Amino acid sequence: MNVTDKKGQKIVNDLFSGPVELTDNDGLAALIATEAQADLLILLSDVEGVFTSPPGTPGSVLLHSFNPNTDMNKIKFVGGQSKVGRGGMQSKITSAKQALDAGCNVIIASGFNPDSISNIIAGKRVGTLFSYKPDDGYTRDMAVLARKASRFLQTQPLAKRAQILTAVADAIEREENYILKENLKDVSQAQKESSLSESNLSRLRLNHKKLRVLVEGIRSMANDTQDPLNKPIRKTELAQGLELVQQTTAIGVIMVIFESRPDALVQVASLALQSGNGVLLKGGVEAKYSNRALHQIILSAMKGVAPDVPEGIIGLVETREEITELLALDDHIDLVIPRGSSQLVRFIQRTSKIPVLAHGEGICHVYVDKDANIEKAISIVLDAKTDYPAACNSMETLLIHSDFFHDDQIRKFVNALHDAKVKVHAGPKLASKESDLLPGDVLRKLPVAPALHYEFGDLQCTIEIVDSVQEAINHVHEYGSGHTDSIVTENFKTAETWIQQVDSACVFHNASTRFADGYRFGLGAEVGVSTGRIHARGPVGVDGLLTTKWVLRGKGSESHIVAPFNLGEKKFDHKSKL
Amino acid sequence: MNVTDKKGQKIVNDLFSGPVELTDNDGLAALIATEAQADLLILLSDVEGVFTSPPGTPGSVLLHSFNPNTDMNKIKFVGGQSKVGRGGMQSKITSAKQALDAGCNVIIASGFNPDSISNIIAGKRVGTLFSYKPDDGYTRDMAVLARKASRFLQTQPLAKRAQILTAVADAIEREENYILKENLKDVSQAQKESSLSESNLSRLRLNHKKLRVLVEGIRSMANDTQDPLNKPIRKTELAQGLELVQQTTAIGVIMVIFESRPDALVQVASLALQSGNGVLLKGGVEAKYSNRALHQIILSAMKGVAPDVPEGIIGLVETREEITELLALDDHIDLVIPRGSSQLVRFIQRTSKIPVLAHGEGICHVYVDKDANIEKAISIVLDAKTDYPAACNSMETLLIHSDFFHDDQIRKFVNALHDAKVKVHAGPKLASKESDLLPGDVLRKLPVAPALHYEFGDLQCTIEIVDSVQEAINHVHEYGSGHTDSIVTENFKTAETWIQQVDSACVFHNASTRFADGYRFGLGAEVGVSTGRIHARGPVGVDGLLTTKWVLRGKGSESHIVAPFNLGEKKFDHKSKL
Repeated sequence: MNVTDKKGQKIVNDLFSGPVELTDNDGLAALIATEAQADLLILLSDVEGVFTSPPGTPGSVLLHSFNPNTDMNKIKFVGGQSKVGRGGMQSKITSAKQALDAGCNVIIASGFNPDSISNIIAGKRVGTLFSYKPDDGYTRDMAVLARKASRFLQTQPLAKRAQILTAVADAIEREENYILKENLKDVSQAQKESSLSESNLSRLRLNHKKLRVLVEGIRSMANDTQDPLNKPIRKTELAQGLELVQQTTAIGVIMVIFESRPDALVQVASLALQSGNGVLLKGGVEAKYSNRALHQIILSAMKGVAPDVPEGIIGLVETREEITELLALDDHIDLVIPRGSSQLVRFIQRTSKIPVLAHGEGICHVYVDKDANIEKAISIVLDAKTDYPAACNSMETLLIHSDFFHDDQIRKFVNALHDAKVKVHAGPKLASKESDLLPGDVLRKLPVAPALHYEFGDLQCTIEIVDSVQEAINHVHEYGSGHTDSIVTENFKTAETWIQQVDSACVFHNASTRFADGYRFGLGAEVGVSTGRIHARGPVGVDGLLTTKWVLRGKGSESHIVAPFNLGEKKFDHKSKL
Repeated sequence: MNVTDKKGQKIVNDLFSGPVELTDNDGLAALIATEAQADLLILLSDVEGVFTSPPGTPGSVLLHSFNPNTDMNKIKFVGGQSKVGRGGMQSKITSAKQALDAGCNVIIASGFNPDSISNIIAGKRVGTLFSYKPDDGYTRDMAVLARKASRFLQTQPLAKRAQILTAVADAIEREENYILKENLKDVSQAQKESSLSESNLSRLRLNHKKLRVLVEGIRSMANDTQDPLNKPIRKTELAQGLELVQQTTAIGVIMVIFESRPDALVQVASLALQSGNGVLLKGGVEAKYSNRALHQIILSAMKGVAPDVPEGIIGLVETREEITELLALDDHIDLVIPRGSSQLVRFIQRTSKIPVLAHGEGICHVYVDKDANIEKAISIVLDAKTDYPAACNSMETLLIHSDFFHDDQIRKFVNALHDAKVKVHAGPKLASKESDLLPGDVLRKLPVAPALHYEFGDLQCTIEIVDSVQEAINHVHEYGSGHTDSIVTENFKTAETWIQQVDSACVFHNASTRFADGYRFGLGAEVGVSTGRIHARGPVGVDGLLTTKWVLRGKGSESHIVAPFNLGEKKFDHKSKL
């Protein structure tokens, strides 16, 4: 049989089994899509999608997603027929619903834009997505709301943002019993299911002390008199009357993916409120009740003092979308910050289309130079390894100058580490000295290190010997992870060689690697630690949530255009003013 | 039949058709991998891969890739038997060669590291990759060399780097005839094959003037007295004797993917030399001869004045690897900068696992406020649209306050644009006024705009009317691309509302959008323009090639460890010194 459209043109042969009358091409498209079991039907229109009222009328807004069951009352048709071709928006929506009912996804987009289809294929937000599932496009919509809210929050003075933070701190203090009650639900559930390790369980569990630390942190943010926003970074007079300022601004929308620790929700939400960012919080299901309670408390505290700030500023993502789907929303979310296990972080770094701020591995070195003071060195080594062995900034490899091997002092390090219950491994060079050693020497008994690029993350470390500061630097470059590496030496020239050449986020002299931390660095609340080299590196404070914008003001009566500069009639001065 | 290893244990049944004697498990693995037609064989060892000499002996270096035909002389065996299990490295290499000969890729890695296998699956650089193809792992190795070279170059004083730049400028001047001759080969080839558009052909063609501009640019970089490296950004005394400095440093390894323009090679190479970065240049095949000539001239100029800087600092990627393979080298390359068509840029942004610095779309707006001076506004609008319509910072949409519609002045803008040969489209709101207009009105004849989020990139633009600055801001947020948006108004309060609320990389008042440019902003050589919000935003100068590192110096005789701070025995001061 043949399918013809109203004009009688033969369109598709042998596709359907009975006579079909089609009112327009949209209906035909829906039918073909259904028969072909297409995954996606794209209906191209002369407008960019479904609007709340005809595009161009006041207040008309493009809907990014549309549920035909619940959203019909959101839109107002006038006339209904589009200027181009048959089938107005009403007919398109009817056809879209038909296809959707048959299990085919539908997007209505502009046919004028030659990039519409390729952008849709690339997963970009284009036009209006039809869906019945309440969570389809839900996180996407949350991100759109968060951006709008962020733009509003950025216009609020610091005092107002501080007032919100104070209200949040007060509310957490006031609602402590409720928070702990909800948290207990999560903890009991996890205990019943034995689904969490002991350490994750302790991360999940809130208590008076943890909440007090949180509240104090928020209050100190609220008392911050320096506005992180609109801080000038650079000022230049380009030419007479033409002044350029590069100033800080919020990044926009940040997604934080965190496991267990519900306190991370409060920390990140507070940082976002201070810095004018919108934030989507994706917590683990293991902290469901705690996260919901904290999220609600923060929002209602904010509503009390700043009812004009849209609630969307902090979204709690509880949809059934896979994390991989969230990580593909690079059109809507500017930055992802994972807070959790190294498995989670690695998965997100590999999968995300959105830039990720996180630390990969923390393979930190302490190099004890030949000119080191040995007591100082042992004290730093012990602190770096044992203060908190699970932390990313704890020492994994101890490099010792071979002079300490030859004068036997290396054993002092091994013994001190053994006394502190640290299992010590020998690097290949140290292990190769085995035959030079007397039987019974402590160095003979050291197991061989599993690998030199290796993070133990517990009370273990590797000792390797090197013949010079240069060999130590090369070792760090070959096997390190660019996190934190420290030299111990009394020779300042050697120290400066180390500082200049070691290419890590944190490079230390005579100090424990454990100092590599936002709080210890005085950055205020810590967003995380980054081993990436783009955007932020090392411990990251609120700066990690900021970007800049360039403001150019043309002053006076002149019209500031580039043509006279092109022609050489005017010249740029580029006078630096900051 | 059965397969047994030397101990006589039955390992695999029914796999082979004849009796097999195996000397060790490596040989067995190679055999099974071959029979099973595996894509990859992973041989786990007690060391991290193939070293030039036994690990731990002086100067021993891990080989990241290994060609059994040509690289055997790179390695020196001592003993040969590893400490763990049968089969030393020699036996592993023999087995690897067997599997490789049968078409199976092989990686030798450490079996002690529990992440080895998952890291290999994730495509990370782990162990030693066996390959006969000279280009397998080649770009990877180039990136490793570039990082080593970058680390060396960063230790060189500014004067030395300036000397190299001067030598490069001199050489380009001196070799002009040779460069033009090689360039002519590319141009003739492209003309013969008619493979390039006229505009790409003109981008490919070098001439005296283009080379002069390049040489001048390099000389001005060489004369820069401010070192971009090691500039302190922040100084804090954490506690007595413990001083923290955050200072600039090179990012490391940057890959630039460029089409046609061989001058981009010179610009980027010079910026890399100035800022201590290693750079991989992936030019189009259409500029093969030009790129090779320029690359060689730069390297030999550098060799003349700085023979100690490794040549790997600037690598020309001419391998047959697909760009997608290069874009997966996120372990080795820190940043990708595409310079070419918007198709290329979009492809790279979608595909790359490495962070990308690039501008997506440039949908720039000029908003003419009700308090605008109309002559100034028309002049800015014309400049913004017509100065260079193909540029990303040219105006695509003109928003005009509805007062200008009501007092008929809007026609002055339309006529001025028409006089300048600009095709003007009407936005939906303007188009909806059609019925209010007299027949013959110029506004009636405007075609409807294809879409509001749309980059014409030529002499076309859209005019839309808005009722307030707030509506204009909302329009920019809904349909803009966050590049550059300018308000024209004499009302400074309105201007500040615009500046505060418009969330674009460049926000202007009474100035043409065309000022959004690294040269005009006084940033020196431009790396590119970024519409991303992470790392760099807007026009990007050498800053875009820099990151920071944190240097912590423990002074005096004290041992700087965190334990006493944890215990409250010591307190942080966090005194800001900069």
